[in-house]
Amino acid sequence: MRETEIVEYIRGLGSGIGDDCAVFQPRAREDLVFTTDFVLESRHFELSTHTAADVGHKALARSLSDLAAMGAEPAFCLVSLAIPPKLASRWVKEFYGGLTALATRFGVTLAGGDTARFERVVVDVMCCGRVPRGKALLRSGAQPGDAIYVTGELGASAHGLTTKRGEAWKRHLRPEPRIAAGLALRKLGVSACMDLSDGLSLDLVRLCKESRVSAELTGELPIARGASLDEALNGGEDYELLFTSRRNLPHEIAGVTVTRIGRITSQRPARIRFAGRPLKPKAFDHFAEAKS
Amino acid sequence: MRETEIVEYIRGLGSGIGDDCAVFQPRAREDLVFTTDFVLESRHFELSTHTAADVGHKALARSLSDLAAMGAEPAFCLVSLAIPPKLASRWVKEFYGGLTALATRFGVTLAGGDTARFERVVVDVMCCGRVPRGKALLRSGAQPGDAIYVTGELGASAHGLTTKRGEAWKRHLRPEPRIAAGLALRKLGVSACMDLSDGLSLDLVRLCKESRVSAELTGELPIARGASLDEALNGGEDYELLFTSRRNLPHEIAGVTVTRIGRITSQRPARIRFAGRPLKPKAFDHFAEAKS
Repeated sequence: MRETEIVEYIRGLGSGIGDDCAVFQPRAREDLVFTTDFVLESRHFELSTHTAADVGHKALARSLSDLAAMGAEPAFCLVSLAIPPKLASRWVKEFYGGLTALATRFGVTLAGGDTARFERVVVDVMCCGRVPRGKALLRSGAQPGDAIYVTGELGASAHGLTTKRGEAWKRHLRPEPRIAAGLALRKLGVSACMDLSDGLSLDLVRLCKESRVSAELTGELPIARGASLDEALNGGEDYELLFTSRRNLPHEIAGVTVTRIGRITSQRPARIRFAGRPLKPKAFDHFAEAKS
Repeated sequence: MRETEIVEYIRGLGSGIGDDCAVFQPRAREDLVFTTDFVLESRHFELSTHTAADVGHKALARSLSDLAAMGAEPAFCLVSLAIPPKLASRWVKEFYGGLTALATRFGVTLAGGDTARFERVVVDVMCCGRVPRGKALLRSGAQPGDAIYVTGELGASAHGLTTKRGEAWKRHLRPEPRIAAGLALRKLGVSACMDLSDGLSLDLVRLCKESRVSAELTGELPIARGASLDEALNGGEDYELLFTSRRNLPHEIAGVTVTRIGRITSQRPARIRFAGRPLKPKAFDHFAEAKS
Protein backbone atom coordinates (compact mmCIF):
# COMPACT_ATOMS: atom_id res chain seq x y z
CA MET A 1 0.00 0.00 0.00
CA ARG A 2 1.61 3.25 -1.10
CA GLU A 3 1.34 6.55 0.70
CA THR A 4 -1.30 7.94 -1.63
CA GLU A 5 -3.40 4.80 -1.33
CA ILE A 6 -3.39 4.69 2.44
CA VAL A 7 -4.14 8.39 2.79
CA GLU A 8 -7.01 8.08 0.30
CA TYR A 9 -8.26 5.03 2.18
CA ILE A 10 -8.24 6.84 5.53
CA ARG A 11 -9.88 9.90 3.96
CA GLY A 12 -12.73 7.63 2.96
CA LEU A 13 -13.23 6.70 6.63
CA GLY A 14 -13.05 10.07 8.32
CA SER A 15 -14.43 13.52 7.80
CA GLY A 16 -12.41 16.70 7.50
CA ILE A 17 -9.16 14.90 6.61
CA GLY A 18 -7.00 16.67 4.03
CA ASP A 19 -5.65 19.74 5.80
CA ASP A 20 -2.62 20.10 8.04
CA CYS A 21 -4.89 19.95 11.09
CA ALA A 22 -8.38 18.71 11.94
CA VAL A 23 -10.76 21.58 12.80
CA PHE A 24 -13.14 21.19 15.74
CA GLN A 25 -15.88 23.57 16.86
CA PRO A 26 -16.46 23.40 20.64
CA ARG A 27 -19.95 23.99 21.97
CA ALA A 28 -20.60 26.87 24.36
CA ARG A 29 -19.91 26.24 28.06
CA GLU A 30 -18.14 22.93 27.69
CA ASP A 31 -14.72 21.68 28.68
CA LEU A 32 -12.79 19.31 26.47
CA VAL A 33 -10.76 16.40 27.79
CA PHE A 34 -7.83 14.81 25.95
CA THR A 35 -5.92 11.58 26.28
CA THR A 36 -3.39 9.67 24.24
CA ASP A 37 -2.43 6.00 24.55
CA PHE A 38 0.20 3.82 22.93
CA VAL A 39 -0.55 0.33 21.68
CA LEU A 40 2.83 -1.22 20.80
CA GLU A 41 3.62 -4.54 19.15
CA SER A 42 5.13 -7.07 21.59
CA ARG A 43 4.19 -4.88 24.53
CA HIS A 44 0.43 -4.47 24.31
CA PHE A 45 -0.27 -7.13 21.69
CA GLU A 46 1.33 -9.81 19.50
CA LEU A 47 0.71 -10.14 15.78
CA SER A 48 0.47 -13.92 16.33
CA THR A 49 -2.42 -13.74 18.81
CA HIS A 50 -4.22 -10.48 17.98
CA THR A 51 -5.98 -9.83 14.69
CA ALA A 52 -5.59 -6.41 13.08
CA ALA A 53 -9.19 -5.69 14.07
CA ASP A 54 -8.37 -6.59 17.72
CA VAL A 55 -5.48 -4.10 17.66
CA GLY A 56 -7.68 -1.37 16.16
CA HIS A 57 -10.38 -2.03 18.76
CA LYS A 58 -7.95 -2.05 21.67
CA ALA A 59 -6.13 1.10 20.54
CA LEU A 60 -9.33 3.15 20.59
CA ALA A 61 -10.79 1.36 23.64
CA ARG A 62 -7.81 2.37 25.81
CA SER A 63 -8.39 6.05 25.04
CA LEU A 64 -12.18 5.80 25.32
CA SER A 65 -11.74 4.25 28.77
CA ASP A 66 -9.86 7.40 29.83
CA LEU A 67 -12.78 9.52 28.59
CA ALA A 68 -15.17 7.30 30.57
CA ALA A 69 -13.08 7.91 33.69
CA MET A 70 -13.61 11.68 33.26
CA GLY A 71 -17.36 11.30 32.70
CA ALA A 72 -16.91 12.62 29.16
CA GLU A 73 -18.91 12.15 25.99
CA PRO A 74 -16.60 10.99 23.16
CA ALA A 75 -16.11 13.48 20.31
CA PHE A 76 -13.27 12.62 17.94
CA CYS A 77 -9.93 10.83 17.66
CA LEU A 78 -6.62 11.14 15.80
CA VAL A 79 -4.92 7.86 14.92
CA SER A 80 -1.15 7.58 14.44
CA LEU A 81 -0.21 4.24 12.86
CA ALA A 82 3.23 2.91 11.92
CA ILE A 83 3.49 -0.51 10.29
CA PRO A 84 6.25 -2.74 8.94
CA PRO A 85 6.40 -3.15 5.13
CA LYS A 86 5.68 -6.89 5.51
CA LEU A 87 2.09 -6.18 6.56
CA ALA A 88 -0.27 -6.07 3.60
CA SER A 89 -2.93 -3.47 2.95
CA ARG A 90 -5.46 -5.99 4.27
CA TRP A 91 -3.94 -5.61 7.75
CA VAL A 92 -4.34 -1.83 7.57
CA LYS A 93 -7.95 -2.12 6.42
CA GLU A 94 -8.82 -4.63 9.14
CA PHE A 95 -7.13 -2.45 11.74
CA TYR A 96 -9.28 0.52 10.72
CA GLY A 97 -12.26 -1.83 10.49
CA GLY A 98 -11.88 -2.81 14.16
CA LEU A 99 -11.23 0.78 15.20
CA THR A 100 -14.10 2.38 13.28
CA ALA A 101 -16.59 -0.31 14.40
CA LEU A 102 -15.94 0.79 17.99
CA ALA A 103 -15.83 4.47 16.99
CA THR A 104 -19.24 4.20 15.35
CA ARG A 105 -20.76 2.59 18.47
CA PHE A 106 -19.60 5.53 20.59
CA GLY A 107 -20.10 8.36 18.10
CA VAL A 108 -16.38 9.10 17.70
CA THR A 109 -15.25 10.83 14.50
CA LEU A 110 -11.93 9.73 12.98
CA ALA A 111 -10.58 13.21 12.29
CA GLY A 112 -7.01 12.55 11.12
CA GLY A 113 -3.66 11.27 12.27
CA ASP A 114 -0.30 10.28 10.89
CA THR A 115 1.03 7.17 9.14
CA ALA A 116 4.55 5.82 8.76
CA ARG A 117 6.55 2.76 7.92
CA PHE A 118 8.47 1.28 10.85
CA GLU A 119 10.00 -2.03 11.87
CA ARG A 120 7.20 -2.72 14.37
CA VAL A 121 3.53 -1.83 14.63
CA VAL A 122 3.09 1.35 16.65
CA VAL A 123 -0.32 2.84 17.36
CA ASP A 124 -0.98 6.03 19.29
CA VAL A 125 -4.59 7.15 19.57
CA MET A 126 -5.52 10.62 20.81
CA CYS A 127 -9.13 10.96 21.86
CA CYS A 128 -11.13 14.08 22.73
CA GLY A 129 -14.32 14.15 24.79
CA ARG A 130 -16.78 16.78 26.03
CA VAL A 131 -18.00 17.56 29.54
CA PRO A 132 -20.15 20.41 30.85
CA ARG A 133 -17.83 23.14 32.13
CA GLY A 134 -16.14 22.30 35.41
CA LYS A 135 -17.84 18.90 35.65
CA ALA A 136 -15.06 16.51 34.62
CA LEU A 137 -14.55 13.67 37.10
CA LEU A 138 -11.07 13.84 38.65
CA ARG A 139 -8.92 11.56 40.78
CA SER A 140 -8.46 14.24 43.39
CA GLY A 141 -11.96 14.54 44.89
CA ALA A 142 -12.09 11.54 47.24
CA GLN A 143 -12.70 12.41 50.92
CA PRO A 144 -12.48 10.40 54.13
CA GLY A 145 -15.72 8.50 54.67
CA ASP A 146 -16.50 8.14 50.95
CA ALA A 147 -17.39 4.64 49.78
CA ILE A 148 -15.15 3.04 47.12
CA TYR A 149 -16.78 1.28 44.17
CA VAL A 150 -15.85 -0.54 40.97
CA THR A 151 -17.89 -1.33 37.89
CA GLY A 152 -18.10 -4.87 36.50
CA GLU A 153 -15.65 -7.63 37.48
CA LEU A 154 -11.91 -7.65 38.08
CA GLY A 155 -9.12 -9.90 36.84
CA ALA A 156 -10.75 -11.09 33.60
CA SER A 157 -8.18 -9.46 31.32
CA ALA A 158 -5.12 -10.80 33.19
CA HIS A 159 -6.74 -14.22 33.45
CA GLY A 160 -7.55 -14.22 29.73
CA LEU A 161 -3.98 -13.31 28.89
CA THR A 162 -2.86 -16.46 30.72
CA THR A 163 -5.45 -18.90 29.38
CA LYS A 164 -5.92 -17.35 25.93
CA ARG A 165 -9.45 -18.74 25.76
CA GLY A 166 -13.06 -18.27 26.76
CA GLU A 167 -14.84 -15.16 27.94
CA ALA A 168 -11.76 -13.84 29.78
CA TRP A 169 -9.60 -13.89 26.64
CA LYS A 170 -12.38 -12.12 24.76
CA ARG A 171 -12.43 -9.48 27.50
CA HIS A 172 -8.67 -9.08 27.09
CA LEU A 173 -8.86 -8.78 23.30
CA ARG A 174 -11.90 -6.53 23.18
CA PRO A 175 -12.11 -4.38 26.30
CA GLU A 176 -15.36 -2.47 26.64
CA PRO A 177 -14.93 1.19 27.61
CA ARG A 178 -17.45 2.16 30.33
CA ILE A 179 -18.64 5.33 28.59
CA ALA A 180 -22.31 5.12 29.62
CA ALA A 181 -21.36 4.36 33.23
CA GLY A 182 -18.92 7.29 33.27
CA LEU A 183 -21.60 9.70 32.03
CA ALA A 184 -24.04 8.38 34.66
CA LEU A 185 -21.45 8.68 37.45
CA ARG A 186 -20.81 12.30 36.50
CA LYS A 187 -24.54 13.03 36.74
CA LEU A 188 -24.71 11.19 40.08
CA GLY A 189 -21.95 13.48 41.34
CA VAL A 190 -19.37 10.91 42.45
CA SER A 191 -16.38 12.46 44.22
CA ALA A 192 -13.47 10.86 42.30
CA CYS A 193 -13.06 8.48 39.38
CA MET A 194 -10.39 6.77 37.27
CA ASP A 195 -10.16 3.74 35.02
CA LEU A 196 -8.43 0.51 36.02
CA SER A 197 -5.69 0.03 33.47
CA ASP A 198 -2.79 -1.14 35.65
CA GLY A 199 -4.59 -3.13 38.34
CA LEU A 200 -6.60 -2.17 41.44
CA SER A 201 -3.71 -2.23 43.93
CA LEU A 202 -1.63 0.28 41.93
CA ASP A 203 -4.45 2.42 40.53
CA LEU A 204 -6.09 2.87 43.93
CA VAL A 205 -2.77 4.18 45.28
CA ARG A 206 -2.76 6.74 42.46
CA LEU A 207 -6.29 7.87 43.26
CA CYS A 208 -5.41 8.13 46.94
CA LYS A 209 -2.25 10.12 46.17
CA GLU A 210 -4.19 12.65 44.06
CA SER A 211 -6.85 12.96 46.79
CA ARG A 212 -4.30 12.85 49.67
CA VAL A 213 -6.19 10.11 51.46
CA SER A 214 -5.88 6.38 52.21
CA ALA A 215 -8.22 3.44 51.64
CA GLU A 216 -9.55 0.36 53.42
CA LEU A 217 -10.84 -2.45 51.24
CA THR A 218 -13.27 -4.91 52.82
CA GLY A 219 -11.67 -7.97 51.23
CA GLU A 220 -14.74 -8.70 49.11
CA LEU A 221 -14.10 -8.09 45.39
CA PRO A 222 -16.21 -8.80 42.29
CA ILE A 223 -13.74 -11.35 40.87
CA ALA A 224 -14.31 -12.44 37.27
CA ARG A 225 -15.18 -16.12 36.71
CA GLY A 226 -11.99 -18.19 36.70
CA ALA A 227 -9.72 -15.33 37.80
CA SER A 228 -7.64 -15.47 40.97
CA LEU A 229 -7.62 -12.93 43.79
CA ASP A 230 -4.12 -11.93 42.65
CA GLU A 231 -5.40 -11.29 39.09
CA ALA A 232 -8.29 -9.24 40.46
CA LEU A 233 -6.03 -7.16 42.72
CA ASN A 234 -2.97 -6.79 40.50
CA GLY A 235 -3.95 -7.66 36.93
CA GLY A 236 -3.97 -4.85 34.36
CA GLU A 237 -6.24 -3.82 31.53
CA ASP A 238 -9.63 -4.48 33.07
CA TYR A 239 -10.73 -0.99 31.99
CA GLU A 240 -13.41 -0.95 34.67
CA LEU A 241 -14.10 2.29 36.57
CA LEU A 242 -12.85 2.84 40.12
CA PHE A 243 -14.71 5.63 41.90
CA THR A 244 -15.70 7.08 45.24
CA SER A 245 -18.98 8.51 46.46
CA ARG A 246 -20.22 10.28 49.56
CA ARG A 247 -23.68 8.76 49.22
CA ASN A 248 -24.77 5.18 48.59
CA LEU A 249 -25.16 4.18 44.97
CA PRO A 250 -27.43 1.59 43.33
CA HIS A 251 -26.07 -1.89 42.49
CA GLU A 252 -26.41 -1.26 38.78
CA ILE A 253 -25.58 1.92 36.85
CA ALA A 254 -26.13 2.31 33.10
CA GLY A 255 -26.54 -1.45 32.75
CA VAL A 256 -23.30 -2.30 34.58
CA THR A 257 -23.00 -3.94 37.99
CA VAL A 258 -21.46 -1.68 40.62
CA THR A 259 -19.82 -3.12 43.76
CA ARG A 260 -18.84 -1.34 46.94
CA ILE A 261 -15.35 -2.57 47.85
CA GLY A 262 -14.27 -0.32 50.72
CA ARG A 263 -14.01 3.19 52.07
CA ILE A 264 -11.69 6.19 52.04
CA THR A 265 -9.87 6.99 55.28
CA SER A 266 -7.91 9.98 56.40
CA GLN A 267 -4.43 8.51 56.85
CA ARG A 268 -1.59 9.83 54.78
CA PRO A 269 0.34 9.04 52.66
CA ALA A 270 -1.66 6.83 50.29
CA ARG A 271 -1.86 3.54 52.20
CA ILE A 272 -4.17 0.71 51.19
CA ARG A 273 -5.46 -1.97 53.56
CA PHE A 274 -7.18 -5.11 52.26
CA ALA A 275 -9.19 -7.26 54.69
CA GLY A 276 -7.39 -5.62 57.59
CA ARG A 277 -3.83 -6.01 56.27
CA PRO A 278 -1.56 -3.62 54.35
CA LEU A 279 -1.77 -4.09 50.56
CA LYS A 280 1.31 -3.31 48.48
CA PRO A 281 0.81 -2.04 44.94
CA LYS A 282 1.95 -5.02 42.90
CA ALA A 283 0.45 -4.35 39.50
CA PHE A 284 2.83 -4.12 36.58
CA ASP A 285 4.97 -1.21 37.65
CA HIS A 286 6.69 -1.04 34.31
CA PHE A 287 7.33 1.98 32.19
CA ALA A 288 4.96 0.62 29.53
CA GLU A 289 1.87 1.52 31.49
CA ALA A 290 2.99 4.81 32.99
CA LYS A 291 0.28 7.27 32.12
CA SER A 292 1.18 10.88 32.75
CA MET B 1 14.33 5.60 35.30
CA ARG B 2 11.35 3.79 36.75
CA GLU B 3 7.74 4.46 35.88
CA THR B 4 7.05 6.48 38.99
CA GLU B 5 10.17 8.59 38.47
CA ILE B 6 9.42 9.48 34.87
CA VAL B 7 5.79 10.29 35.59
CA GLU B 8 6.82 12.49 38.51
CA TYR B 9 9.45 14.15 36.30
CA ILE B 10 6.91 14.93 33.56
CA ARG B 11 4.40 16.16 36.14
CA GLY B 12 6.99 18.68 37.20
CA LEU B 13 7.09 20.03 33.64
CA GLY B 14 3.43 20.28 32.78
CA SER B 15 0.28 21.50 34.41
CA GLY B 16 -2.86 19.48 34.98
CA ILE B 17 -1.08 16.11 34.66
CA GLY B 18 -2.34 13.42 37.02
CA ASP B 19 -5.80 12.52 35.77
CA ASP B 20 -6.86 10.11 33.04
CA CYS B 21 -7.26 13.05 30.64
CA ALA B 22 -6.04 16.63 30.34
CA VAL B 23 -8.87 19.16 30.76
CA PHE B 24 -9.03 22.18 28.43
CA GLN B 25 -11.44 25.10 28.57
CA PRO B 26 -12.11 26.56 25.10
CA ARG B 27 -12.78 30.28 24.79
CA ALA B 28 -16.08 31.49 23.37
CA ARG B 29 -16.35 31.71 19.58
CA GLU B 30 -13.15 29.88 18.72
CA ASP B 31 -12.38 26.78 16.70
CA LEU B 32 -9.69 24.36 17.79
CA VAL B 33 -7.28 22.68 15.39
CA PHE B 34 -5.49 19.40 16.07
CA THR B 35 -2.56 17.60 14.55
CA THR B 36 -0.38 14.64 15.44
CA ASP B 37 3.07 13.77 14.07
CA PHE B 38 5.39 10.83 14.49
CA VAL B 39 9.11 11.23 15.02
CA LEU B 40 10.60 7.75 14.70
CA GLU B 41 14.17 6.56 15.31
CA SER B 42 15.97 5.67 12.05
CA ARG B 43 13.22 7.30 9.99
CA HIS B 44 13.10 10.89 11.18
CA PHE B 45 16.34 10.95 13.17
CA GLU B 46 19.32 8.85 14.26
CA LEU B 47 20.54 8.56 17.83
CA SER B 48 24.09 8.92 16.46
CA THR B 49 23.54 12.32 14.83
CA HIS B 50 20.67 13.87 16.79
CA THR B 51 20.90 14.80 20.46
CA ALA B 52 17.93 14.06 22.70
CA ALA B 53 17.22 17.80 22.75
CA ASP B 54 17.21 17.86 18.92
CA VAL B 55 14.63 15.06 18.90
CA GLY B 56 12.45 16.86 21.45
CA HIS B 57 12.67 20.09 19.45
CA LYS B 58 11.86 18.41 16.16
CA ALA B 59 8.96 16.40 17.56
CA LEU B 60 7.16 19.53 18.71
CA ALA B 61 8.29 21.66 15.75
CA ARG B 62 6.63 19.28 13.26
CA SER B 63 3.26 19.68 14.99
CA LEU B 64 3.66 23.42 15.52
CA SER B 65 4.35 23.81 11.81
CA ASP B 66 0.95 22.25 11.12
CA LEU B 67 -0.66 24.80 13.45
CA ALA B 68 1.18 27.58 11.61
CA ALA B 69 -0.25 26.30 8.34
CA MET B 70 -3.78 26.72 9.73
CA GLY B 71 -3.05 30.24 11.04
CA ALA B 72 -3.55 28.98 14.59
CA GLU B 73 -2.25 30.16 17.94
CA PRO B 74 -0.61 27.23 19.81
CA ALA B 75 -2.41 26.09 22.97
CA PHE B 76 -1.20 22.76 24.37
CA CYS B 77 0.40 19.45 23.45
CA LEU B 78 0.32 15.81 24.51
CA VAL B 79 3.59 13.92 24.18
CA SER B 80 3.76 10.15 23.71
CA LEU B 81 7.30 8.84 24.20
CA ALA B 82 8.60 5.27 23.98
CA ILE B 83 12.28 4.61 24.65
CA PRO B 84 14.60 1.59 24.79
CA PRO B 85 15.85 0.53 28.24
CA LYS B 86 19.43 1.34 27.17
CA LEU B 87 18.72 5.07 27.16
CA ALA B 88 19.41 6.65 30.52
CA SER B 89 17.23 9.11 32.36
CA ARG B 90 19.53 11.85 31.08
CA TRP B 91 18.27 11.20 27.54
CA VAL B 92 14.67 11.56 28.70
CA LYS B 93 15.42 14.79 30.54
CA GLU B 94 17.30 16.28 27.58
CA PHE B 95 14.47 15.26 25.25
CA TYR B 96 11.96 17.12 27.41
CA GLY B 97 14.46 19.96 27.74
CA GLY B 98 14.55 20.46 23.97
CA LEU B 99 10.81 20.09 23.68
CA THR B 100 9.86 22.41 26.53
CA ALA B 101 12.36 25.10 25.40
CA LEU B 102 10.44 25.32 22.11
CA ALA B 103 7.09 25.00 23.91
CA THR B 104 7.92 27.93 26.18
CA ARG B 105 8.87 30.13 23.20
CA PHE B 106 5.46 29.52 21.62
CA GLY B 107 3.31 29.42 24.76
CA VAL B 108 2.47 25.73 24.46
CA THR B 109 1.45 23.88 27.63
CA LEU B 110 2.66 20.29 28.06
CA ALA B 111 -0.65 18.83 29.22
CA GLY B 112 0.04 15.10 29.35
CA GLY B 113 0.82 12.10 27.19
CA ASP B 114 1.90 8.49 27.51
CA THR B 115 5.23 6.77 28.11
CA ALA B 116 6.41 3.24 27.34
CA ARG B 117 9.47 1.09 26.96
CA PHE B 118 10.11 -0.09 23.41
CA GLU B 119 13.00 -1.35 21.30
CA ARG B 120 13.26 1.96 19.42
CA VAL B 121 12.57 5.58 20.24
CA VAL B 122 9.04 6.51 19.17
CA VAL B 123 7.65 10.00 19.64
CA ASP B 124 4.14 11.12 18.72
CA VAL B 125 3.22 14.71 19.55
CA MET B 126 -0.37 15.92 19.42
CA CYS B 127 -0.72 19.68 19.32
CA CYS B 128 -3.84 21.84 19.70
CA GLY B 129 -4.20 25.43 18.48
CA ARG B 130 -6.88 28.12 18.53
CA VAL B 131 -8.38 30.14 15.67
CA PRO B 132 -11.33 32.54 15.60
CA ARG B 133 -14.42 30.60 14.51
CA GLY B 134 -14.45 29.75 10.82
CA LYS B 135 -11.09 31.43 10.17
CA ALA B 136 -8.70 28.46 9.94
CA LEU B 137 -6.55 28.55 6.81
CA LEU B 138 -7.27 25.53 4.59
CA ARG B 139 -5.67 23.93 1.55
CA SER B 140 -8.90 24.12 -0.39
CA GLY B 141 -9.32 27.87 -0.93
CA ALA B 142 -6.93 28.55 -3.86
CA GLN B 143 -8.60 30.00 -6.97
CA PRO B 144 -7.39 30.54 -10.54
CA GLY B 145 -5.47 33.80 -10.75
CA ASP B 146 -4.21 33.68 -7.15
CA ALA B 147 -0.49 34.23 -6.67
CA ILE B 148 1.54 31.42 -5.05
CA TYR B 149 4.03 32.30 -2.30
CA VAL B 150 6.47 30.63 0.07
CA THR B 151 8.06 31.87 3.27
CA GLY B 152 11.83 31.73 3.76
CA GLU B 153 14.13 29.58 1.64
CA LEU B 154 13.79 26.08 0.24
CA GLY B 155 16.10 23.06 0.23
CA ALA B 156 18.09 23.88 3.38
CA SER B 157 16.88 20.86 5.33
CA ALA B 158 17.55 18.33 2.55
CA HIS B 159 20.92 19.94 1.87
CA GLY B 160 21.83 19.86 5.55
CA LEU B 161 20.91 16.19 5.75
CA THR B 162 23.47 15.51 3.02
CA THR B 163 26.32 17.69 4.30
CA LYS B 164 25.64 17.36 8.05
CA ARG B 165 27.24 20.74 8.67
CA GLY B 166 26.76 24.49 8.63
CA GLU B 167 23.57 26.51 8.69
CA ALA B 168 21.69 23.96 6.56
CA TRP B 169 22.33 21.12 9.02
CA LYS B 170 21.22 23.38 11.86
CA ARG B 171 18.03 24.09 9.91
CA HIS B 172 17.50 20.35 9.52
CA LEU B 173 18.10 19.65 13.22
CA ARG B 174 16.12 22.58 14.56
CA PRO B 175 13.33 23.52 12.17
CA GLU B 176 11.60 26.78 13.04
CA PRO B 177 7.79 26.62 12.90
CA ARG B 178 6.38 29.70 11.14
CA ILE B 179 3.78 30.46 13.81
CA ALA B 180 3.97 34.28 13.61
CA ALA B 181 3.82 34.21 9.81
CA GLY B 182 0.81 31.86 9.90
CA LEU B 183 -1.08 34.18 12.26
CA ALA B 184 -0.25 37.17 10.01
CA LEU B 185 -1.33 35.32 6.87
CA ARG B 186 -4.68 34.49 8.48
CA LYS B 187 -5.22 38.15 9.27
CA LEU B 188 -4.19 39.10 5.73
CA GLY B 189 -6.86 36.72 4.44
CA VAL B 190 -4.77 34.48 2.20
CA SER B 191 -6.87 32.00 0.21
CA ALA B 192 -5.07 28.71 0.97
CA CYS B 193 -2.10 27.61 3.08
CA MET B 194 -0.12 24.51 4.06
CA ASP B 195 3.32 23.73 5.42
CA LEU B 196 6.12 22.27 3.31
CA SER B 197 6.99 18.99 4.99
CA ASP B 198 7.48 16.68 2.00
CA GLY B 199 8.90 19.07 -0.62
CA LEU B 200 7.37 21.74 -2.85
CA SER B 201 6.68 19.52 -5.86
CA LEU B 202 4.58 17.05 -3.86
CA ASP B 203 3.00 19.46 -1.39
CA LEU B 204 1.87 21.86 -4.14
CA VAL B 205 0.08 18.96 -5.85
CA ARG B 206 -1.75 18.30 -2.58
CA LEU B 207 -2.81 21.93 -2.25
CA CYS B 208 -3.97 21.94 -5.89
CA LYS B 209 -5.93 18.70 -5.39
CA GLU B 210 -7.77 20.11 -2.38
CA SER B 211 -8.54 23.33 -4.29
CA ARG B 212 -9.27 21.53 -7.60
CA VAL B 213 -6.88 23.79 -9.50
CA SER B 214 -3.45 23.64 -11.18
CA ALA B 215 -0.32 25.76 -10.80
CA GLU B 216 2.35 27.46 -12.90
CA LEU B 217 5.65 28.17 -11.21
CA THR B 218 7.83 30.88 -12.73
CA GLY B 219 11.08 28.96 -12.33
CA GLU B 220 12.44 31.42 -9.78
CA LEU B 221 12.67 29.93 -6.29
CA PRO B 222 14.21 31.24 -3.04
CA ILE B 223 16.85 28.50 -2.87
CA ALA B 224 18.77 28.20 0.39
CA ARG B 225 22.53 28.89 0.25
CA GLY B 226 24.35 25.78 -0.97
CA ALA B 227 21.18 23.85 -1.81
CA SER B 228 20.47 22.56 -5.33
CA LEU B 229 17.33 23.22 -7.39
CA ASP B 230 16.42 19.56 -6.87
CA GLU B 231 16.70 19.96 -3.08
CA ALA B 232 14.56 23.12 -3.22
CA LEU B 233 11.88 21.46 -5.37
CA ASN B 234 11.85 17.97 -3.89
CA GLY B 235 13.56 18.07 -0.50
CA GLY B 236 11.45 17.52 2.58
CA GLU B 237 11.24 19.06 6.04
CA ASP B 238 11.72 22.73 5.20
CA TYR B 239 8.64 23.55 7.29
CA GLU B 240 8.15 26.78 5.38
CA LEU B 241 4.61 27.91 4.51
CA LEU B 242 3.20 27.53 1.00
CA PHE B 243 0.20 29.77 0.41
CA THR B 244 -1.93 31.54 -2.18
CA SER B 245 -3.39 35.03 -2.25
CA ARG B 246 -5.76 36.95 -4.46
CA ARG B 247 -3.98 40.22 -3.73
CA ASN B 248 -0.29 41.11 -3.74
CA LEU B 249 1.53 40.63 -0.46
CA PRO B 250 4.56 42.43 0.98
CA HIS B 251 8.04 40.91 0.64
CA GLU B 252 8.30 40.36 4.36
CA ILE B 253 5.62 39.14 6.76
CA ALA B 254 6.14 38.79 10.52
CA GLY B 255 9.89 39.09 10.04
CA VAL B 256 10.10 36.35 7.39
CA THR B 257 10.89 36.85 3.71
CA VAL B 258 8.00 36.00 1.41
CA THR B 259 8.58 35.12 -2.26
CA ARG B 260 6.05 34.93 -5.06
CA ILE B 261 6.83 31.75 -7.01
CA GLY B 262 3.92 31.38 -9.45
CA ARG B 263 0.18 31.47 -9.94
CA ILE B 264 -2.86 29.24 -9.73
CA THR B 265 -4.51 28.23 -13.02
CA SER B 266 -7.81 26.61 -13.80
CA GLN B 267 -6.71 23.33 -15.35
CA ARG B 268 -7.67 20.08 -13.71
CA PRO B 269 -6.51 17.70 -12.37
CA ALA B 270 -3.71 19.09 -10.20
CA ARG B 271 -0.92 19.71 -12.75
CA ILE B 272 2.19 21.69 -11.92
CA ARG B 273 4.32 23.49 -14.51
CA PHE B 274 7.77 24.83 -13.64
CA ALA B 275 9.43 27.35 -15.99
CA GLY B 276 7.08 26.29 -18.76
CA ARG B 277 7.54 22.50 -18.39
CA PRO B 278 5.51 19.87 -16.54
CA LEU B 279 6.84 19.17 -13.03
CA LYS B 280 6.37 15.70 -11.56
CA PRO B 281 5.99 15.37 -7.80
CA LYS B 282 9.27 13.76 -6.83
CA ALA B 283 9.48 14.42 -3.11
CA PHE B 284 9.78 11.44 -0.82
CA ASP B 285 6.59 9.62 -1.63
CA HIS B 286 7.12 7.18 1.17
CA PHE B 287 4.63 6.03 3.69
CA ALA B 288 6.67 7.68 6.44
CA GLU B 289 5.50 11.14 5.53
CA ALA B 290 1.91 10.41 4.64
CA LYS B 291 -0.12 12.88 6.66
CA SER B 292 -3.82 12.21 6.70
